[in-house]
Amino acid sequence: MGSRSFFVEPGSIQGDRAVLRGQVAHQLNHVLRLAEGDVIELLDNSGTLYLARILECAREEVVARVEERREPAAEPRTRLTLYQALLKGDKMETVLQKGTEIGVTRFVPVLGERSVSRPGAGELERKLPRWRVIIREAAEQSGRATLPEVGPLASLEEACRQAAAAAALSFMAWEEEEMSFGLGRLVREARRTREGRGEAGPVAVSVLVGPEGGFSAREAGIARSAGVRLASLGPRILRAETAAVVAATVVMEAMGEMGD
Amino acid sequence: MGSRSFFVEPGSIQGDRAVLRGQVAHQLNHVLRLAEGDVIELLDNSGTLYLARILECAREEVVARVEERREPAAEPRTRLTLYQALLKGDKMETVLQKGTEIGVTRFVPVLGERSVSRPGAGELERKLPRWRVIIREAAEQSGRATLPEVGPLASLEEACRQAAAAAALSFMAWEEEEMSFGLGRLVREARRTREGRGEAGPVAVSVLVGPEGGFSAREAGIARSAGVRLASLGPRILRAETAAVVAATVVMEAMGEMGD
Repeated sequence: MGSRSFFVEPGSIQGDRAVLRGQVAHQLNHVLRLAEGDVIELLDNSGTLYLARILECAREEVVARVEERREPAAEPRTRLTLYQALLKGDKMETVLQKGTEIGVTRFVPVLGERSVSRPGAGELERKLPRWRVIIREAAEQSGRATLPEVGPLASLEEACRQAAAAAALSFMAWEEEEMSFGLGRLVREARRTREGRGEAGPVAVSVLVGPEGGFSAREAGIARSAGVRLASLGPRILRAETAAVVAATVVMEAMGEMGD
Repeated sequence: MGSRSFFVEPGSIQGDRAVLRGQVAHQLNHVLRLAEGDVIELLDNSGTLYLARILECAREEVVARVEERREPAAEPRTRLTLYQALLKGDKMETVLQKGTEIGVTRFVPVLGERSVSRPGAGELERKLPRWRVIIREAAEQSGRATLPEVGPLASLEEACRQAAAAAALSFMAWEEEEMSFGLGRLVREARRTREGRGEAGPVAVSVLVGPEGGFSAREAGIARSAGVRLASLGPRILRAETAAVVAATVVMEAMGEMGD
């Protein structure tokens, strides 16, 4: 399982010296009760994992010496952006937590036509710090080496435009059309086509997942017009937050990121 | 999305006549405020969906006439048993809810070596009614035609023995061995082998998922000795309840049950 790792502020690690303050210092001192000589794993969101030995453990400041640098194997090569229509209550937090564990690179909240949750810009702004804490904790717990990004809020039109422009493969989870193929099949086919053309390097994938009532037919039409492919998650009606977790899993599995 | 359907007591539907009492009658009358002439979808756990029109809507009893019988398309052919090590708090409920949506046929709670939750038999017995409600509601919401079963509690040894004996394909989600292949690849290979031999009909698959701390090396050894294959869910450390949802998704996707 490996030991717990910590994302630290950029600039906390200079050469071989790490100086940790604030929340991380508090956690090392008072929650984990670590002491001089203990080894900790630090991440500065650069993609490198630092193994560091604690030199001084004062109340406000922990100083550690970097003894080793590693490239963690847990960071996926596939760059998955999850465009998630806003959800009620703590469902959005579930999606951010599970999505980070599964390997999402970026979350973009989307205002869907049927979104029950319709916060104003200010309200959403106030949610962001809490969302970032959830993402950071999930990233630390699951062994991610970089923190998934979140935001800003996009309209459905803007999300479709972004998804189609930025990603080699872009999909909308859509259940109401008999003709749509399964998301897993579509991703695998696209992956094979790409490999057949000899294209290497990380692949960007975008998936749009709807709100509690799903995307409307009008929204599916907007997606299709923007070049986003409609894809099925099967015949069972999934709750919105289940659909997000399932869609992220299916994409990452089809890309060989969930064990190969 | 289709209208909401209701599981009713076996025997509630006799020929063309459905007589509904108790919780279902209450829900139709007072929650959904349905009236004579409205059409409802009923399930009696036989695998058939009944479309029935309400004839009488009294406080204690709703009488309806069956007008149509259907075989719902949402019931998976694959029979997936999820052997889930007991989890703390409401995480077990998350697994039952999401697992039902994804298509699990049977849940078997397992007492893992590292299970933090270690209820006595009586305590577990008391949880069962609540678990069954969660499963029924998830089944109704997602369009399942049969209710997943739950229980009884099994030791890890017993779970491995059952899994290997009852299922054509049995796996333990296991993260600590570099050599284990991905669950999706293993299921797809087994599916192809089976199809190559011309075997048809529903396939039984078993997956064992560990508690918060994962299965121990000793438990993985027990699984392997019993004929259960160790399978990876990838390099990121998944929370126990995320692992269950991911494992169920990967199996069902590889079996062509999440859209094909």
